[in-house]
Amino acid sequence: MDWTLARRTGRMRASAIREILHLTERPGILSMAGGLPSADGFPIEVLAQASARVLRDTPREALQYAPSEGYGPLRDWVAQRHGVAPDHVMITTGSQQGLDLVGKVLLDAGSAVAVETPTYLGALQAFQVYEPRFVELPCDAQGPLPDALARLPGARRPDGVRFAYLLPSFQNPTGRLIGAQRRAEILAAALEAGVPIVEDNPYGDLWFDEAPAPALHAQAPEAVVYLGSFSKVLAPGLRLGYLIAPRALFPKLLQAKQATDLHTPGFNQRIVHEVVRDGFLDRHLPGIRARHAAQRDAMATALLTHMPPGTRWQTPRGGMFFWLRLPDDLDAMALLPHAVDQGMAFVPGAPFHAGVADACTLRLSFVTLDAVQIARGLEMLGRAIGTARAAMHVS
Amino acid sequence: MDWTLARRTGRMRASAIREILHLTERPGILSMAGGLPSADGFPIEVLAQASARVLRDTPREALQYAPSEGYGPLRDWVAQRHGVAPDHVMITTGSQQGLDLVGKVLLDAGSAVAVETPTYLGALQAFQVYEPRFVELPCDAQGPLPDALARLPGARRPDGVRFAYLLPSFQNPTGRLIGAQRRAEILAAALEAGVPIVEDNPYGDLWFDEAPAPALHAQAPEAVVYLGSFSKVLAPGLRLGYLIAPRALFPKLLQAKQATDLHTPGFNQRIVHEVVRDGFLDRHLPGIRARHAAQRDAMATALLTHMPPGTRWQTPRGGMFFWLRLPDDLDAMALLPHAVDQGMAFVPGAPFHAGVADACTLRLSFVTLDAVQIARGLEMLGRAIGTARAAMHVS
Repeated sequence: MDWTLARRTGRMRASAIREILHLTERPGILSMAGGLPSADGFPIEVLAQASARVLRDTPREALQYAPSEGYGPLRDWVAQRHGVAPDHVMITTGSQQGLDLVGKVLLDAGSAVAVETPTYLGALQAFQVYEPRFVELPCDAQGPLPDALARLPGARRPDGVRFAYLLPSFQNPTGRLIGAQRRAEILAAALEAGVPIVEDNPYGDLWFDEAPAPALHAQAPEAVVYLGSFSKVLAPGLRLGYLIAPRALFPKLLQAKQATDLHTPGFNQRIVHEVVRDGFLDRHLPGIRARHAAQRDAMATALLTHMPPGTRWQTPRGGMFFWLRLPDDLDAMALLPHAVDQGMAFVPGAPFHAGVADACTLRLSFVTLDAVQIARGLEMLGRAIGTARAAMHVS
Repeated sequence: MDWTLARRTGRMRASAIREILHLTERPGILSMAGGLPSADGFPIEVLAQASARVLRDTPREALQYAPSEGYGPLRDWVAQRHGVAPDHVMITTGSQQGLDLVGKVLLDAGSAVAVETPTYLGALQAFQVYEPRFVELPCDAQGPLPDALARLPGARRPDGVRFAYLLPSFQNPTGRLIGAQRRAEILAAALEAGVPIVEDNPYGDLWFDEAPAPALHAQAPEAVVYLGSFSKVLAPGLRLGYLIAPRALFPKLLQAKQATDLHTPGFNQRIVHEVVRDGFLDRHLPGIRARHAAQRDAMATALLTHMPPGTRWQTPRGGMFFWLRLPDDLDAMALLPHAVDQGMAFVPGAPFHAGVADACTLRLSFVTLDAVQIARGLEMLGRAIGTARAAMHVS
């Protein structure tokens, strides 16, 4: 049988990260590639008790079809935590689904979307399905440049930017935190230009020293769709996220949600509500933060020890990632097989770019491995750089 | 802030069924509207034990990120049950997600899709997102007419039909079962025309007297994407379905899945695998079938008692629905408020049509209520028909 594929499939690529994860599933490899939280942080006993309670007290409701908006009490909890009315909150099947829904409702083929340089690979993949045109925002160490945002054509213009996709807190992949002043400048520029914002905030609770400045959404709820996640603060295998949307968009996002998977599993939503309802997160998060901060410190130390002169990075103040720029002679994609040979893995920076990538960049996750493994892994990376350079000089 | 919505949002509608479900959430209403399986059939104790076992034995794996294809042992189980290789199987977030993924990968704006008349409302909604053109297949009591399929332009033609969407077993909404001979004729016509098939089979296991003829997929696996579901045989609140796709499509469906929600909750997949691995379904299904058959019988009897002369229906031999055609003077949409006044609800037939609907049709689910409630509900529907007719004569 001859099938004819949709044009958009020409833009779909196997996720470089997932391919590398497959590559690195061989036992013993020290992977800093995936953004996998350490399972040591999963509140297993608490989740097991909540799961048992849900199936004891409300099994018929938890196992039945349920509203597309999500489980009411969990929506209420999210709404209260973010200071919004519950009818702005939708529970999603991970925050990745939030990205798909935003694309479905806001992007036509050829629509412009502004993104940071670099930006979250999974968002690029989610949006690509809707065949947009990406506009890369120039960034410095403090975040996207407000002037660049101010110059974008607004969403109501025929060739306008439908939205700017931003991760203000501990960005994936750079780990960058946008401070209060830059946030204010970015928001003012976007409002002035008439460019709405999609604010993705899976890492905001994972700060080490002090909480990030308030979300952009809190300043301008009518101009921002906010995406949140339980994956990094509880466990990703439950696939629970949420979005908070202005009234102008909520009904269409809800219709898109119905068409996409009817609703997010009610069982999972009730488990998480059981867990968070009495303030568990606020008791749980300090431990996660302390664990991640120690891992961050271990990586910062190991980088100083094992990286060659000319390597540059910012030490992240939260989140899960270091972003490295290697010396000019090193190509991260070419380095990867050498690293895997040595026994470790990372993700090259290229797939995080909507446009032309800086080939010298790579991302390292510090949350999956323990301090000893992190030190060993970076020693391996240092050796891999040596063998890669030797190979270049031979060829 | 001014947002600009994607063009496709003009085709999105609030689900008529969901709106009616909201309407009928008032306590005491007897709803035959939703396709909600009776919670009496949920294997609560078995699911509770499986859930506890998963969180005791493999919590770190169940709660972590997982492959987009799905949990290996569950894919193996599905593959074995369908006699295919596991690398053709993907676990989806309900079979509704399978419909979304099929649309993502096979439909461009303006692409033709052939559908039965009437067809599953949720599929129309899922496909609408990709802005296709629907071609309604004429149907008789045995299913779509093979001649109509044979005349369709093949998928490789510029204006060809990308696929025909068919529900051969106990169709939603009509309850119709396509027999072995018609299946063979349909498949031959589709292969001859060069039109691939998307076969949706959530109800195939819910037969009363004898199992349906083999799936179309079993006869021509390279020409068919098959969608299956655990919602009707275990519990819908877990949101677990699967698709089986030919090698020509699988990689693109997988990339679309990654972009859509990364993966279906691993926790849920492991619970269901724990439940089904030792043959539980084959012990569980006879009870479900007997319960549904008794409900079907109760509805068949009550219809004979309470429906006015001129009402037509086929008694379904499985599945969940009766499809009624009322006498010509009755409009199902206009009847609905009278029914709700009397204390019962149904779904009018109109939203199940891609094109012009027969306004006299409606769908009744027989699986949600017990026999006594079914009899009472249809008595109410009979009275509603009386008040609707009286109102027509007044106005």
